[in-house]
Amino acid sequence: MPPLHSPLSLRPHLLLLRYRTLIPLLRRSPSCEPPLRRPKRCLSMRAAAAATAQQPELGVEEAVVGFVTGKRKATEVAHAVWRSIVRKGDTVVDATCGNGNDTLALLKMVADERGQGRVYGMDIQDSAIESTSSFLKMAMGDDQQEPVKLFPVCHSRMEEIVPKDTPVRLVAFNLGYLPGGDKTLITVPRTTELALQAASRILSSGGLISVLVYIGHPGGRDELDVVESFASSLPVDTWASCKLQMVNRPIAPVLILLNKKDQFQ
Amino acid sequence: MPPLHSPLSLRPHLLLLRYRTLIPLLRRSPSCEPPLRRPKRCLSMRAAAAATAQQPELGVEEAVVGFVTGKRKATEVAHAVWRSIVRKGDTVVDATCGNGNDTLALLKMVADERGQGRVYGMDIQDSAIESTSSFLKMAMGDDQQEPVKLFPVCHSRMEEIVPKDTPVRLVAFNLGYLPGGDKTLITVPRTTELALQAASRILSSGGLISVLVYIGHPGGRDELDVVESFASSLPVDTWASCKLQMVNRPIAPVLILLNKKDQFQ
Repeated sequence: MPPLHSPLSLRPHLLLLRYRTLIPLLRRSPSCEPPLRRPKRCLSMRAAAAATAQQPELGVEEAVVGFVTGKRKATEVAHAVWRSIVRKGDTVVDATCGNGNDTLALLKMVADERGQGRVYGMDIQDSAIESTSSFLKMAMGDDQQEPVKLFPVCHSRMEEIVPKDTPVRLVAFNLGYLPGGDKTLITVPRTTELALQAASRILSSGGLISVLVYIGHPGGRDELDVVESFASSLPVDTWASCKLQMVNRPIAPVLILLNKKDQFQ
Repeated sequence: MPPLHSPLSLRPHLLLLRYRTLIPLLRRSPSCEPPLRRPKRCLSMRAAAAATAQQPELGVEEAVVGFVTGKRKATEVAHAVWRSIVRKGDTVVDATCGNGNDTLALLKMVADERGQGRVYGMDIQDSAIESTSSFLKMAMGDDQQEPVKLFPVCHSRMEEIVPKDTPVRLVAFNLGYLPGGDKTLITVPRTTELALQAASRILSSGGLISVLVYIGHPGGRDELDVVESFASSLPVDTWASCKLQMVNRPIAPVLILLNKKDQFQ
């Protein structure tokens, strides 16, 4: 199958039109599991989107000290670290769009006046892509989401989506069940491992793979094992792999950050 | 045995004089192991002290992002977090003085014009206390160490040193062998556990116990197990316990931060 280098527009009618064409093709791959996640359907999505869009952007200090003192979440630490690494005009990947929160955060980081920034978002479930598209539209309005390209595919196939030789600064994963969603619908270790391998190949020097692993559900620990095993296997001369977790909250999500060391620094 | 509320002066002659008086008394306690650590004797201590005193003070962002990208050490993250929590005039404890690096960092954090700040430093080995005293003198000069009170006692007995009812903002541990020293001379789990329990009792609301565990030596993993077990046992409503570690460097030190939640925030 040739690479899918023609991104989908976020304009809803084009989005749906392109999906219908692409889905049969994309679902043929044996590397992708059947849909296992369902996006949270929330009546107050518009309010949530507006609130998210207007949230003050925490610095790393506030996020980390807040995490240490139990006032901030691991996801806030992740976003703060992303902001310190991602620049306007960068290309980034949201490997698990879900309800679109991370996609929106990434859009705000890369969107630039020259129109070079790109967020390639993917989720194996059509409904998650639709939710993300709606969420972005509500948060940013009709004309501000041009840098986001959404695909209803398994994240293990991100190399078919991101244009070849494009330097990717960040690949973000949010693994497990969707907060507020059905905890039996989860990402699974096999395709997550393939996706991590793909992310490590497309990441540019100096870039970051960010993995937030939710473990408070059946299968969560198995997935964490896979991510930790992958992180531990990365050679120390070219990768820095670190883990941040709460230890007196055994089911709190674990944040794993994998930096492909910048060879020029 | 009555509490030891009369701190030792840092002036070397007084320090040694007081040691001779105190050591027999202090060593009587069955809770303390015999000396197991030896401070690093370094010919370039004066240069190291001067360099340490003049080091730029990293912010949390620079330290954490540097850690994530493999450019900064866990100890630099620890110091940056301490600086964000400790204030001028605070009382803090260096539970493992060793070569005095942490003691110096803490002195710079708490020293204030009103003379209220205090660093209570301890180490089971006399030679470590002597090294720390010399290191501080070389780094800060003769007259700048007044806030530091050093005691050659096991850290499990910190409650006998810190004046009763003094709010303690930070208790810092640096566990294992001394960098550059003999790796067979290590802190041990039993007294470390007692010391952590003591620290949790004297810490003020909003304060932090910081534990850097070196694990690249025999016994290091056992000590980490004890610290993790203690951290995991702290009730989540009153404590936030987090852990930061490199996962592709299996013997890299592990940083565990335990915050006694501020009940008034």
